[in-house]
Amino acid sequence: MATLVLLRHGESVWNAEGLFTGWVDVDLSATGEEEARRGGELLREADTRPGIVHTSVLKRAIRTANIALDEADLAWLPVRRSWRLNERHYGALQGKDKAQTREEYGEEQFMTWRRSYDTPPPPIGDDNPYTQVGDRRYARLPDELMPRTECLADVVDRMLPYWYDTIVPDLGDGRTVLVAAHGNSLRALVKHLDGLDADTVAGLNIPTGIPLVYELNEDFTPRKQGGEYLDPEAAKEAIEAVKNQGKK
Amino acid sequence: MATLVLLRHGESVWNAEGLFTGWVDVDLSATGEEEARRGGELLREADTRPGIVHTSVLKRAIRTANIALDEADLAWLPVRRSWRLNERHYGALQGKDKAQTREEYGEEQFMTWRRSYDTPPPPIGDDNPYTQVGDRRYARLPDELMPRTECLADVVDRMLPYWYDTIVPDLGDGRTVLVAAHGNSLRALVKHLDGLDADTVAGLNIPTGIPLVYELNEDFTPRKQGGEYLDPEAAKEAIEAVKNQGKK
Repeated sequence: MATLVLLRHGESVWNAEGLFTGWVDVDLSATGEEEARRGGELLREADTRPGIVHTSVLKRAIRTANIALDEADLAWLPVRRSWRLNERHYGALQGKDKAQTREEYGEEQFMTWRRSYDTPPPPIGDDNPYTQVGDRRYARLPDELMPRTECLADVVDRMLPYWYDTIVPDLGDGRTVLVAAHGNSLRALVKHLDGLDADTVAGLNIPTGIPLVYELNEDFTPRKQGGEYLDPEAAKEAIEAVKNQGKK
Repeated sequence: MATLVLLRHGESVWNAEGLFTGWVDVDLSATGEEEARRGGELLREADTRPGIVHTSVLKRAIRTANIALDEADLAWLPVRRSWRLNERHYGALQGKDKAQTREEYGEEQFMTWRRSYDTPPPPIGDDNPYTQVGDRRYARLPDELMPRTECLADVVDRMLPYWYDTIVPDLGDGRTVLVAAHGNSLRALVKHLDGLDADTVAGLNIPTGIPLVYELNEDFTPRKQGGEYLDPEAAKEAIEAVKNQGKK
């Protein structure tokens, strides 16, 4: 039986400032660092010990993994990184103020861009200061794979090959696998694992910094739908808080 | 032409306390963290940009790499770790006070254990609290490969397969390769690169936290014997300081 542990990075500097981030490589805030430490503490306390870690190539996920693993005395774990675990590319919205965007385009358009399964925001121009075209870390990525915007369906499509080709073989080796990534790349993975439809995944929120553990069957399907958070109380509160935010 | 960058970890807590460390997984001191940051700054200032990083499985080297790469905005680099880059195993001396050991065994024996090319310290017992037998990170290492003590010749022997099989192919791919490791695993690598004999390598000191850059020929031999430190003045001072220490 294989174990998969999902860890969403903590608050970034731009989360705190209310800006759309996407693929922009923004660092953790002090709060985000604290969330990462707490994530490591939870792993240690639960004696959940990954044998390998996968991260995106964005520093807020990488530093979350580094801080959590330092805390759990697991800095020595093998690491793999991939752009396929990156946050959803937010297109032309990257770098924009969320509140301003909501005012400018109205609540409906705003929520469509944030939550629709298959409607991406407008694409980012290659001359936009917040494009990742030309970023050295994507130098080996063929241009036709380099996103200019993404909806969640696009994230599922580009994330799944990494799941099948890289994470599943590690699980098959009998290792507990930690994936440190982002709200939307983890939602994409949970959609796949739990077999959620587009409407259900729209309402799915994964709290930051609380490891979510899936025990998997031999065919890498979850033994329990939705997995289990290492701190279920804190996870419930965080999910409620996001729901109430939406109601304002 | 390939580029190899060597980075020796900064001061650890046990360096500061004067204890033999070897494979004991001791963390960096605050000074060591500062040295790591300075190493990252030097990489950035010199525009020396690795495309991949290799570390040992010991946290003082891993955290040195993490801190330096954070500083150089290169946290996204692919990472590989191997026990073959670990510090020399210090046998039964691990965890012992250096000054006490010198008093107990005399200067000659002490210096032989520290600097002889082919005389290892006495082996550590598997019941010694400072053994690494049973440590989960070495669970896949066959017992016959698990060191109980090492001289520098042993380090050369166990490090070279990693150089040939893992680092050289990365260099062959045209990537600048960063190796974040330890005094003795890096001396072993420099011995090989520069073709040093046992006597010469006995007098070789690699300063901590200052990246050492080797430009390599097509056959992966150095273009310039000894490479070049990114801060040659600081490197010279550090090397002199170690020499004078020896003279006390």
